[in-house]
Amino acid sequence: MNPFSKSRRESVGALGEEKLIAAIRRWLGRTSPRAPFGIGDDCAVLAPSRGPQLITVDPVIYPRHFNDHVPPRAVGAKLLRRNLSDLAAMGGRPTAAVLALTLDARVSRRWLEAFYRGLAACARLYRVPIVGGDIAQADGMVGASLTLLGEATGPRTLTRTGARLGDAIYVTGVLGGSLRSGHHYSFTPRLKEGAWLARRPEVRAMMDLSDGLAKDIHALTPPRGVAALEPATLPRRSGANLRAALTEGEDYELVFAVAAQADAAHFERAWRHAFPRTRLTRVGRFVRVGALPATAIDLADYHGYEHLR
Amino acid sequence: MNPFSKSRRESVGALGEEKLIAAIRRWLGRTSPRAPFGIGDDCAVLAPSRGPQLITVDPVIYPRHFNDHVPPRAVGAKLLRRNLSDLAAMGGRPTAAVLALTLDARVSRRWLEAFYRGLAACARLYRVPIVGGDIAQADGMVGASLTLLGEATGPRTLTRTGARLGDAIYVTGVLGGSLRSGHHYSFTPRLKEGAWLARRPEVRAMMDLSDGLAKDIHALTPPRGVAALEPATLPRRSGANLRAALTEGEDYELVFAVAAQADAAHFERAWRHAFPRTRLTRVGRFVRVGALPATAIDLADYHGYEHLR
Repeated sequence: MNPFSKSRRESVGALGEEKLIAAIRRWLGRTSPRAPFGIGDDCAVLAPSRGPQLITVDPVIYPRHFNDHVPPRAVGAKLLRRNLSDLAAMGGRPTAAVLALTLDARVSRRWLEAFYRGLAACARLYRVPIVGGDIAQADGMVGASLTLLGEATGPRTLTRTGARLGDAIYVTGVLGGSLRSGHHYSFTPRLKEGAWLARRPEVRAMMDLSDGLAKDIHALTPPRGVAALEPATLPRRSGANLRAALTEGEDYELVFAVAAQADAAHFERAWRHAFPRTRLTRVGRFVRVGALPATAIDLADYHGYEHLR
Repeated sequence: MNPFSKSRRESVGALGEEKLIAAIRRWLGRTSPRAPFGIGDDCAVLAPSRGPQLITVDPVIYPRHFNDHVPPRAVGAKLLRRNLSDLAAMGGRPTAAVLALTLDARVSRRWLEAFYRGLAACARLYRVPIVGGDIAQADGMVGASLTLLGEATGPRTLTRTGARLGDAIYVTGVLGGSLRSGHHYSFTPRLKEGAWLARRPEVRAMMDLSDGLAKDIHALTPPRGVAALEPATLPRRSGANLRAALTEGEDYELVFAVAAQADAAHFERAWRHAFPRTRLTRVGRFVRVGALPATAIDLADYHGYEHLR
């Protein structure tokens, strides 16, 4: 569905700001708490945190993150899911979200209603109150940016830092073909898996995959190290070749490092017991620069998604 | 300064994402904490809150909130100040901010550097760590949305709800002419005043003025009431007429209700002692619908800034 309306009457501009905000609150339903704990005052008031907090921000922008083939309900859900994936990558769970919308006045009310209803359904599923927002106008623009607050689910928050030379590299799910298959908007953020991994002492560092493994793995790689990925082991989506699995991006899977001295068989058994339906694959290990095995992928041959190009 | 670069070489697109993020961290300097407490991981980790929290989000978008005549440093500062004004309106103080940037690849590096340096200078002044962000590309777009976290400065958070019939209406500063005078980007958010007012029991409700008093006052008006504003009392910026003071918007001043039975002279003396340089004006009171004095402004004759028109 194209976000722009053909008739002025059916546009958000014709509705006007006040009625639009009232409609948004209706579309959000019970995921939108009453002011001052939600939309409707200068700020929203949130309960004190129970411990350290997590915060992340990610957008969806037309036509970069969705096009006319993505149902607007899925666009709203994708916006929240992308941010939930960032929380999952640190072993967190969500507490509240605020939404900044930037719209052309010609955007269709039907499109926007479906967007918000999709966001609300996803917010109910993951119990994320939408506590605030802003609507601004910009010609040609259909975009939204969501800031998600969260908290750790256990005593530890997993970061991208901490992997060491020799550590094994694991990924969840399958890679590549995300845009073609619709995975980029229908994926399940790995919140349960992330929380479980943050409680496993043998897991040293973790992140989520958004720009493709070939690019993202650099952020997890220890100093003086390089990722030795074995091409045969890479879990690929049906129809995705090696290049697609490494570079297409929007996988929203977890990649993490497991200590070299850990009992891998024991760890993998525990995973299968906890997540019998989530594929886990050991795809390689971190080695010293210059010590890349001949069989490993030379990452210099692959580039993930480059923003601002 | 126009945000678009004439030469491809001088554009953010030519710089590329990785170098741009490194440059942004340099421009932000010490307002940008190290990961995982700032930019560079999937989420930023924040210290536990000391009590109830406040959250708000507001954007600056070209050419709606700034044009080529506004120095880019001032645009960056305005983005933070707008959000600080929302915190001030509830008696809060800031704790952390995240920034979502949406840029055309042709935006000039010089423009963006000045934008970030202006934001960083303002963040240092108000001690707001910039803990996270996102950069996305959209054709023709130069915009940023900032989510600001804060906390109450005392036992009470002032909301827009709570004014009663008979309560006096006060405004800080002067109104109107904000765009013409440059006030819209150079204003000082009323954080100190807001915190002081939240501790005064006679103050019942408060908000900040962004779309013009004529429109904004409705949100403060009690049920079955109407604001009786006396035109002669309205504090106007030099050169601003009554209509400008009521409708132009972007005043970023506080408007609040003081209990009818309070000792107004005592309250005003205390204010002058606390804020000898911040003008305070009683501009009217809330009366029952139908009981508007003949001298009062009929707000139906005035409309504030309408978004999405």
